[in-house]
Amino acid sequence: MPDTVFLSGDHVDLRPIEEDDLEFLQRQINDPRVWRAIGRQQPVNAAQEREFFENVVCGDETVNLMVVADGTPVGTIGLNSFDWPSRYAELGYWIAPEHHRKGYGGEAARRVVGYGFDQLGLHRIAARVFAFNEASRGLLESIGFTQEGVHRDGEFVDGEWHDVHWYGYLEDEWRSRS
Amino acid sequence: MPDTVFLSGDHVDLRPIEEDDLEFLQRQINDPRVWRAIGRQQPVNAAQEREFFENVVCGDETVNLMVVADGTPVGTIGLNSFDWPSRYAELGYWIAPEHHRKGYGGEAARRVVGYGFDQLGLHRIAARVFAFNEASRGLLESIGFTQEGVHRDGEFVDGEWHDVHWYGYLEDEWRSRS
Amino acid sequence: MPDTVFLSGDHVDLRPIEEDDLEFLQRQINDPRVWRAIGRQQPVNAAQEREFFENVVCGDETVNLMVVADGTPVGTIGLNSFDWPSRYAELGYWIAPEHHRKGYGGEAARRVVGYGFDQLGLHRIAARVFAFNEASRGLLESIGFTQEGVHRDGEFVDGEWHDVHWYGYLEDEWRSRS
Amino acid sequence: MPDTVFLSGDHVDLRPIEEDDLEFLQRQINDPRVWRAIGRQQPVNAAQEREFFENVVCGDETVNLMVVADGTPVGTIGLNSFDWPSRYAELGYWIAPEHHRKGYGGEAARRVVGYGFDQLGLHRIAARVFAFNEASRGLLESIGFTQEGVHRDGEFVDGEWHDVHWYGYLEDEWRSRS
Amino acid sequence: MPDTVFLSGDHVDLRPIEEDDLEFLQRQINDPRVWRAIGRQQPVNAAQEREFFENVVCGDETVNLMVVADGTPVGTIGLNSFDWPSRYAELGYWIAPEHHRKGYGGEAARRVVGYGFDQLGLHRIAARVFAFNEASRGLLESIGFTQEGVHRDGEFVDGEWHDVHWYGYLEDEWRSRS
Amino acid sequence: MPDTVFLSGDHVDLRPIEEDDLEFLQRQINDPRVWRAIGRQQPVNAAQEREFFENVVCGDETVNLMVVADGTPVGTIGLNSFDWPSRYAELGYWIAPEHHRKGYGGEAARRVVGYGFDQLGLHRIAARVFAFNEASRGLLESIGFTQEGVHRDGEFVDGEWHDVHWYGYLEDEWRSRS
Repeated sequence: MPDTVFLSGDHVDLRPIEEDDLEFLQRQINDPRVWRAIGRQQPVNAAQEREFFENVVCGDETVNLMVVADGTPVGTIGLNSFDWPSRYAELGYWIAPEHHRKGYGGEAARRVVGYGFDQLGLHRIAARVFAFNEASRGLLESIGFTQEGVHRDGEFVDGEWHDVHWYGYLEDEWRSRS
Repeated sequence: MPDTVFLSGDHVDLRPIEEDDLEFLQRQINDPRVWRAIGRQQPVNAAQEREFFENVVCGDETVNLMVVADGTPVGTIGLNSFDWPSRYAELGYWIAPEHHRKGYGGEAARRVVGYGFDQLGLHRIAARVFAFNEASRGLLESIGFTQEGVHRDGEFVDGEWHDVHWYGYLEDEWRSRS
Repeated sequence: MPDTVFLSGDHVDLRPIEEDDLEFLQRQINDPRVWRAIGRQQPVNAAQEREFFENVVCGDETVNLMVVADGTPVGTIGLNSFDWPSRYAELGYWIAPEHHRKGYGGEAARRVVGYGFDQLGLHRIAARVFAFNEASRGLLESIGFTQEGVHRDGEFVDGEWHDVHWYGYLEDEWRSRS
Repeated sequence: MPDTVFLSGDHVDLRPIEEDDLEFLQRQINDPRVWRAIGRQQPVNAAQEREFFENVVCGDETVNLMVVADGTPVGTIGLNSFDWPSRYAELGYWIAPEHHRKGYGGEAARRVVGYGFDQLGLHRIAARVFAFNEASRGLLESIGFTQEGVHRDGEFVDGEWHDVHWYGYLEDEWRSRS
Repeated sequence: MPDTVFLSGDHVDLRPIEEDDLEFLQRQINDPRVWRAIGRQQPVNAAQEREFFENVVCGDETVNLMVVADGTPVGTIGLNSFDWPSRYAELGYWIAPEHHRKGYGGEAARRVVGYGFDQLGLHRIAARVFAFNEASRGLLESIGFTQEGVHRDGEFVDGEWHDVHWYGYLEDEWRSRS
Repeated sequence: MPDTVFLSGDHVDLRPIEEDDLEFLQRQINDPRVWRAIGRQQPVNAAQEREFFENVVCGDETVNLMVVADGTPVGTIGLNSFDWPSRYAELGYWIAPEHHRKGYGGEAARRVVGYGFDQLGLHRIAARVFAFNEASRGLLESIGFTQEGVHRDGEFVDGEWHDVHWYGYLEDEWRSRS
């Protein structure tokens, strides 16, 4: 099945998330290297992953995309927590550990940020990252996000408290950057 | 499966939309070259496309047809927003990018407009086009639509506001033209 | 029960529509002097009015308000057909015939238009009026709407075709006006 | 009905929210002086307020309390967005305009913050305030909250963008302060 | 309504819990002097208290009794967590603060313990008490319960960890004592 | 299907419990060598096992994991009876008789205990074991649990009363041990 591409980049394509992706998604969301970095701590079985697919992915309150490189799924990215009157949404993503450091996350994030500002008319996009996730923080900063706050001890991971860094991006900043 | 033809033209045939078409439809509706021009901005996965098929295509409130050229699906066309007491409907269509500039859209539109006036007894058919979609505007004008209004800044696409041009066609105009 | 006021004006208040209003709403929507001007042509019984109340008024896709003068309901007003990515909504209203020409519609419309631009962040508000409804056309123009188009023979009323005038208002126009 | 007090203060008591409170709650949540400051922009009718009462207040995912002074309801306060593994919750409250500047909000907030740390074992309590709400910002700072970030243009109110100030409070800070 | 007595004592009677008791129960369960000692920390409104009444009190999985002194409700007592094959249940009770130190709890507990052994054929009755609740610990010991364990830091109350003392009573001990 | 691993050890992996596991689970839970040691005494048919799967495993109130060695399911382990305000949970597990004495239970328990303290922020984890289950008691003590109480005659098995030993583990103890 040739991919149905929604947004395309140089090295990655972003496409809708399909039922056939559930196995990959479930394996990743149970991988500690993935869940520790995104604030999830519970095991997810196939039935629960399917419920997420039906309620969230197939719903219309969030935007969800699979990040694909050379036809291989490598992670997911999307926008959530929409506040339309204030034209705001939050960016969320994860890349499978075996595909880190290849630039996939950064490219996917640029596409989705541009889509959010240029097609959804957003005024502001925010993102949150745990302090220890330096790769993600560097990714956001390189795209043009500005750190706006540090929520101290925002998340408990690996037996310790970690700050949560909040980033924001405004449409004017994006336009002047592009 | 030989096509079940509903309306036929010289170069295209218009037939009902079938379940086997879902893959083609889903791929097209996620293609930015298609969705940017018709006011859709969200990714659509197979489950969501199927839901559209079941609720809208298989419903009885709109007319939906697949445009086929040489046995190949090239786009869809139809009538929606029916107001029967006022004998009004809106024309909508899209042709896959790889099949542009072959005259398929124009021929399909003539067939459906004629069908609307001559078989559904419509008095008026309207259509809306984004200002930048010159091909579509030219198509409507060449068929005989009259521009009736410009809704300023009606749609936000690619980071900018675009006017939406509204066209109307009355049955007397069609009859005198044919 | 003192009114729960959502937006207040000098002579009218706008409050949520409540179950106790159903009788008034049903009486008005069946009055030809009301339905002829807003494109409704079907009788509505109490059960149907209640269904409208539960599905539309108590839903979250539209904004619906009762226009009240001196504690008396005189009509309804609201915003519908929201397109959030394009920051657009359509204004709709009716005032009971016995309360015409008192300025209630104009005052209510000003409040809702300001609310749409200032609190919902809309970029554009549109409205449609039948050609024969000169009072409503004058109301929209006096508030600052610009006529953007005439949909010829858009509505069939009283045995004749009537044009539908479309008006638009942009946020910059509202801001420079206030 | 003598109040069922859950937490008591010198000038205010905090009690569970009851069905009889719905009228007061609905009137307040539709008052622009209340909704403009808490990010709500839609009218709420009695049926919608009841639905909120049944789903949220009577549910078990949030803590909701009525603030009462001299037997009179003056506002609500509570904790929401619980993340138990990270021992986090967000504080939310509003006081009716006619009861501002009497210290009710501050006293209620102190009680709930202490309850959150001492009875629910929270490690961190956060709160967000719009930049123009100086009274609320002063209230949080006087209780001991620390500003942790400014989400620029986080909310659109009254035709302008307003920053959203985020505050945090850690259990050690509370303990050393008490 | 003269009390329907289920078990009677010298100073207290134990009767079924009725709908008319909901107001008293709700007021008590929201009183910090009551909930802090029994491991409950959430406010309970009338609807939630009624739900407890319908699901638990009117169910058949637990035994629930109102403790009444001179016709006045002073607290509740009962048996829960039944394990019939092992002939075990847990004793739970609370007395309203204004009725402490009158011996009501001790008398009620003796009646229910005897009922559990002599009428329900239990082999073992257990009870748990927070370390700071010396009155309750004394009550259990005076009746004949034996401390069987200390669950360290079992409960977080008033900003500190408190041990939970577990007591047990076996039918032979009860029989030799009576 | 390669296992979706949630927590991994040297000899065992812990993964979510899936529908395909129901046959194994049902066979084990009906085996007297398993149910006698964990306080279950009722036969369980496939429909009942499925109901447990849907209500408990697929729910969000407990953590449930399959213990797998060399790709073979050997038992289950998890945390239940969560009391979030007191940051407490109870550890439960069983290993199929044919896989006893291979160290699987101990390794699985260490992983889950560490996960409970380090990822769920628990302060205390408890466990209960029947007196005759010396293997399980040794397992808990070797991991670092402290015996906190003996509930005399807590369980009736094989025609006799058996004490139930309660163990507790506090986060500081775990941290100093690791």
